[in-house]
Parts: sequence; C-alpha cells; structure tokens
Amino acid sequence: MAGGRTPVWKSIAATLRDEIADGRYTPGDKLPTEAQLAGRFGVNRHTVRHAIAQLVEEGLVRTRRGAGAFVAATPTDYPIGSRVRFHENVLAAGRRPEKRVLSIECRAATRGEAQALALTEGDPVCAYHGLSLADDAPIAVFESVFPLDRLPGIDRHLAETSSVTEVLARAGVPDYTRASTRLTAVLADVTQALHLHLKEGDPLLRSTGVNVDAKGVPVEYGRTWFAGDRVTLTLEG
Amino acid sequence: MAGGRTPVWKSIAATLRDEIADGRYTPGDKLPTEAQLAGRFGVNRHTVRHAIAQLVEEGLVRTRRGAGAFVAATPTDYPIGSRVRFHENVLAAGRRPEKRVLSIECRAATRGEAQALALTEGDPVCAYHGLSLADDAPIAVFESVFPLDRLPGIDRHLAETSSVTEVLARAGVPDYTRASTRLTAVLADVTQALHLHLKEGDPLLRSTGVNVDAKGVPVEYGRTWFAGDRVTLTLEG
Repeated sequence: MAGGRTPVWKSIAATLRDEIADGRYTPGDKLPTEAQLAGRFGVNRHTVRHAIAQLVEEGLVRTRRGAGAFVAATPTDYPIGSRVRFHENVLAAGRRPEKRVLSIECRAATRGEAQALALTEGDPVCAYHGLSLADDAPIAVFESVFPLDRLPGIDRHLAETSSVTEVLARAGVPDYTRASTRLTAVLADVTQALHLHLKEGDPLLRSTGVNVDAKGVPVEYGRTWFAGDRVTLTLEG
Repeated sequence: MAGGRTPVWKSIAATLRDEIADGRYTPGDKLPTEAQLAGRFGVNRHTVRHAIAQLVEEGLVRTRRGAGAFVAATPTDYPIGSRVRFHENVLAAGRRPEKRVLSIECRAATRGEAQALALTEGDPVCAYHGLSLADDAPIAVFESVFPLDRLPGIDRHLAETSSVTEVLARAGVPDYTRASTRLTAVLADVTQALHLHLKEGDPLLRSTGVNVDAKGVPVEYGRTWFAGDRVTLTLEG
C-alpha cells in the first residue's frame, strides 16, 4: 500500500475500468477518442494515453493502429442467490467454465467449519481446494468443506470429479440450495495472487456460504475468493 | 502493492480477522491464549503477539492486562436484496445509523448514468455524494444520482434531508425497490481512504444498483463503496 496521491492517469484508468465493469462498454465497443477523453477528464492527451496503456496492459482494452481503442474483455457476470452453480453461471455469461483441483484433504473440522456445518469441532470433513476458470482465465480460488459422516464416500467422489454438483449427486444429494451468503472485500495474499495471476494486495471479493440439502441439512461450507477485476457478482430483484 | 512474501504474523492476523468477520468470535469473546494460538499456528508466542498487536491497532481486538485478548468489534452485517434501506439495515445490526452529506450537485447526466436511469446523456440529474456511518464509524461512501425531470424538486429535497428514502418520498415516490445489484471488490483511492479512515489501497466492496418506483421506472442510480473490514453484505436464501 503505497502512500501519497494517486496520479491523474491512474484515476482515469480506474474510471474507465469501472465503466467497463458496469457494462457501459461491452467487448468490441470502441472507446471515445483520445481527444474526447481528454476533453471529458480535462487533461491532455498524453495523460489519456497513459491511462489507456494501463488498461491495455491489464488486457481490458486493445488498440488497433489508426482505429482507436476497443474493449477486449469485460468481467464475468456471476449471479448469486439461492441457486449457485459455477458451471451454469459461467456458461450463461458466454464463457467456458473449468475447475481445477489444487488439493483434497480429509481432516478434523475446525471450530468455524463445525459451526457452519452444524458439526462438532474435530468431526471428520473433506476440504476441496480449487481454482475456477472462465475461458482459461482464473477467476476465483475456493475451498469447499464437506461433512464426511453425513456424506459417506465423499472422499472417493472428490477424487473422481471436480464438479461440486456432481460430487454431491454421487453422495446422494441430488439437489441443494444456498442457505445464506456473506460477502466482503479482502486483499489477495501471496498464494491467492499466484493462483489468480494477480499481485499480492489486489482486491478480492470473498463469498462465504452454506449449501443445504432438500431437508435443510448443511452439506457444504464454501468460501470463494473472486478476482475483483474479473468478476462482477450480480443479484436480481 | 509491496512485492515479496507476507510475514507469518500478518497471515495469522489475517486468519483471525477473517474468523472475527465470519462471526466465529463475537464482541466480548476472549480469543485463545498466546500459548494456544502459538500451538495452533506452529509459531512462537512472539509472532502471535505481533499478530494480536496488529488487530489491536485496527480496533478489532482489545487486550486487558492479565486477562488476555478480547474481540472489540465485528463488521456490521448489511443485508442486500430487493429492499435496501440503509437506516433499517444498520439499526437491525444493533448499530446507530447516520448519513452525512459530502456534496450535492445538479448537472448533466454522464453516458453511464443516463444508461442506468433510462435517460438521454446530458439530461439533468442531481448527484448526492455522502458518507454512511454506524456507531460513528464510517462504513461506506456513496453516490446517489436522481433524474431531475422525473423528480421535480429533488434538488430542494436533497438540501433538506440526508435520507434517500425521505428524499424520494417528498418527490412523490412513496416506495421503491432495487431492480438489480452488481458487486465487486476494488481498492480505496486517496479520497475514499480519507473519508473512511482507511489507507489508500485498502479493500472496498463496491455495490452498484438501480432503484425503481412501483411502475418500474428508475428513480435512483446508486453506487456504494463499503469498507471491506467493517461491512459484511449478507444475502438470505
């Protein structure tokens, strides 16, 4: 966290990044010209060029010689609510979903895990730590914790498929819903930054939730850290 | 964003901060002893003391001589959904809500504002920039943008009350609902950090939403930047 004032070009880049994230410009859209942006922000064209160069470096904008700057990619929209399905969500955003396993570990539940899953501290759980990708770009790291006694064989199923929905189906839970979701913003630590191809200290949106079966019994305690600049969580109505 | 590795004490502080944010420890709870924490994290007591000192400095933990470390405050839970009311939300969290006006400005709508409010770029809008507090601690900065032609007199009402609900009521909108909400994580800029008593580069959770009247007509385009370590957005079901 450097001190001091934010340079003007950085503020302009942040404003444009926000407008892309908000969907005001969509992929393929031409950004206003350097002269137009200079007028809007009351700066010279050199400053605008610096801001655009930053967005190019981030992969959000591409410039074509003589044609101007175009939006290259927008953050993936990711609906949250009572039915949270990674695969469907990413497909609905027009992107290709993929999950990669980072580690699977069966161990004793921590106090927090036990509380979330209505277990006793020390009861056996299996923790699935993984990476979520959209169009080959990592968008989130997550940890899903499952109660082993309640879902016999979950450790075997986790070794066979990377889909949480499929793992639960094989363990006898054909459907599940999100009982509650808690969201906050945090900074990426070294390991998260490495997995997400970010810098340590970049912003992450952390979602914590408990999934329950048809009877309301907790079957998964999940925490997901979304790359702030690549994902916009959306909530309708 | 400093490079390099995160010191162990910082990771321990982050873990404890997360556990407090998740509600595993609530205000008044005693944290485990230095010896217990040293055992849990596999470090010496000096490292644990360093982590606790950091949380004390942040105001999350208080130490009492001879009695140990206690949780001083937890982040305010803030429900999101179709009915978002700052005053009710903060009261429900057992805290005292307050809004402070930073600026009120009537001007031409930007492209993004026009799009959000179903206006034409350049149509008149009034922008209310303010600070939200809970128990005297700033928890968010926000900007609410209102369509002036659709809400005649909104400029006068904004000068009279800091409540968005009251402003809309006086402008003839007795009730409103949130049509959509978009959430992402960003880093605080200099101005936001100043208002929120944070450091530049600290994590903020940004919420963008449009409120509509009973007929579905947009009456407010709002953006809120919540201090990540002081607010947890919650979503039921």
